[in-house]
Amino acid sequence: MKKIKMILDIDTGIDDALAIAYALGSPEVELIGITGTYGNVLTEQGVQNSLNILNMLGNSNIPVFSGQHHAVDKEHFKTTDGSMFIHGEDGVGNTHIAKSPIAKQQQDGIDFILESCKKYGEELTIVATGPCTNLATAVDRDLETLKLAGNIVIMGGALTVCGNANQFTEANISQDPVSADKLFKSGLPITMIGLDVTLQTLLTKKQSQIWSDLNTTSGKVFSHMVNYYIKAYDTLSPYLGGCGLHDPLAVAVAVDPSLVTTTKLHMKVETEGPSRGRTIGNNEKINEPNPNISVAIGVDVDKFISEFMNRLTTLFSKN
Amino acid sequence: MKKIKMILDIDTGIDDALAIAYALGSPEVELIGITGTYGNVLTEQGVQNSLNILNMLGNSNIPVFSGQHHAVDKEHFKTTDGSMFIHGEDGVGNTHIAKSPIAKQQQDGIDFILESCKKYGEELTIVATGPCTNLATAVDRDLETLKLAGNIVIMGGALTVCGNANQFTEANISQDPVSADKLFKSGLPITMIGLDVTLQTLLTKKQSQIWSDLNTTSGKVFSHMVNYYIKAYDTLSPYLGGCGLHDPLAVAVAVDPSLVTTTKLHMKVETEGPSRGRTIGNNEKINEPNPNISVAIGVDVDKFISEFMNRLTTLFSKN
Repeated sequence: MKKIKMILDIDTGIDDALAIAYALGSPEVELIGITGTYGNVLTEQGVQNSLNILNMLGNSNIPVFSGQHHAVDKEHFKTTDGSMFIHGEDGVGNTHIAKSPIAKQQQDGIDFILESCKKYGEELTIVATGPCTNLATAVDRDLETLKLAGNIVIMGGALTVCGNANQFTEANISQDPVSADKLFKSGLPITMIGLDVTLQTLLTKKQSQIWSDLNTTSGKVFSHMVNYYIKAYDTLSPYLGGCGLHDPLAVAVAVDPSLVTTTKLHMKVETEGPSRGRTIGNNEKINEPNPNISVAIGVDVDKFISEFMNRLTTLFSKN
Repeated sequence: MKKIKMILDIDTGIDDALAIAYALGSPEVELIGITGTYGNVLTEQGVQNSLNILNMLGNSNIPVFSGQHHAVDKEHFKTTDGSMFIHGEDGVGNTHIAKSPIAKQQQDGIDFILESCKKYGEELTIVATGPCTNLATAVDRDLETLKLAGNIVIMGGALTVCGNANQFTEANISQDPVSADKLFKSGLPITMIGLDVTLQTLLTKKQSQIWSDLNTTSGKVFSHMVNYYIKAYDTLSPYLGGCGLHDPLAVAVAVDPSLVTTTKLHMKVETEGPSRGRTIGNNEKINEPNPNISVAIGVDVDKFISEFMNRLTTLFSKN
């Protein structure tokens, strides 16, 4: 079996850490690099978190790159109190993971993405689970090269349900609606894994206990991390009864698209007014052929949770 | 074949008139009555339009009833300039259809709906193509009786695309979001035919010409009516290239559900703020079983247009 060459473009908070673990725990995947962005944390913090998690999971050889530091229409980025409440001050549930001895790469993350598109073409899958700034910057730099990638999956948006940053917008998209709109309108084929499905894929303390019981470093750290995340969800969305597995679902769908059902649309992202960041069909293109966004609207919850637990528990038992 | 007993709950403007024609032109349907509501026109005007159209199409025996005259949270209703632009001052493209010799029924429309639910149960299909006020009033009066109906299809809302009253809300829902929210949360199984699909089902002057060429009264009137409607669409939504067959699609789906693909959701209607009238998934119920709203998100355009033209052209050739 030829492995999927995967780049994760992430703002490493808790569910991003789970996404890294899902990629490392998937025999179908060769994680060729991680590009960092801002969102749950500052870019630098996210990059450090990615390095530390790779190191803890015995994969410190995988290169980590810095991408953009703020939205295209902003001068800077500051982590919100909401993000800190959900992901902890360090972004990974205040777990104090041991610092990796490896430093980030000097190459720019967006250049790494474009270089990988040229190198691997169809074999390359990009999974972006933070704001769309890095990918939109790649669109600006070299759309034709980005089109060489075989698959782009993003975690972001909400089509058939309300947002989580506010009623209109999901957290990732809300950080940089202008970039998300550019990405959606680029013509690139994109699978959108939004709150429509990720709010259905929940983890509870019953499952984190399994990792804690492994008595390994990573089992304990990830158990602690997820419990921190569940506590935030219990406060913010008590009706869900668990924490949403947003980012790992995007990786899982990149590995196995049959986990979700999708509807295809030409999409746009509203960039002004009270609904800034709303992801919605583009009425002006409703009858144009070849819609480029496949929006996940249904998910096989049991199958995903089973895959998720099998892959991560096996990984955590070894490290 | 046992015929579907159908009630149309409508605010008879142009596409409502096409919905009446679709029902009359369908051998699978026995149209047992029309209940009038406000929206495209005042309730009284809509009721008169329904009577006139039934008479013109040789079905003046079908009873027409008045329902509510305004939204539950308003004291009155006034037709908007926008509605008059789209549907004409008389609601039917200023076509001056001959007045029916038959008067409306004295019985209240909502009582007729509830009485029909008791009388026909599973055999009854209600197709509502105006504001949800009449149905929500029926929910208030006797939800258990309304539950006896076999099928409820509404034209209204927009889930995966923007609205047409404004970016958030579709015209029917916008008239009475409080009633729509009550209906959606009633637990009644409802098929929602919204702009998601109706903006894909377009009629052009090529087709209205076919009716004009029939040289019958109804062929000429409907051709004139549709041309009026197309002119409004050419001004308001020139990118569509035709007029949306909103209301007849709802009737068509009641006859043949396979015309659309649907996604099932617990839905709500926002009733406050800038997005008043937005139809969206109810996040708080996302993981509850048995979602009651089947939202059409895909439509077999060619099959519907073919059925539509066959049924209406046959009907108009006779009257």
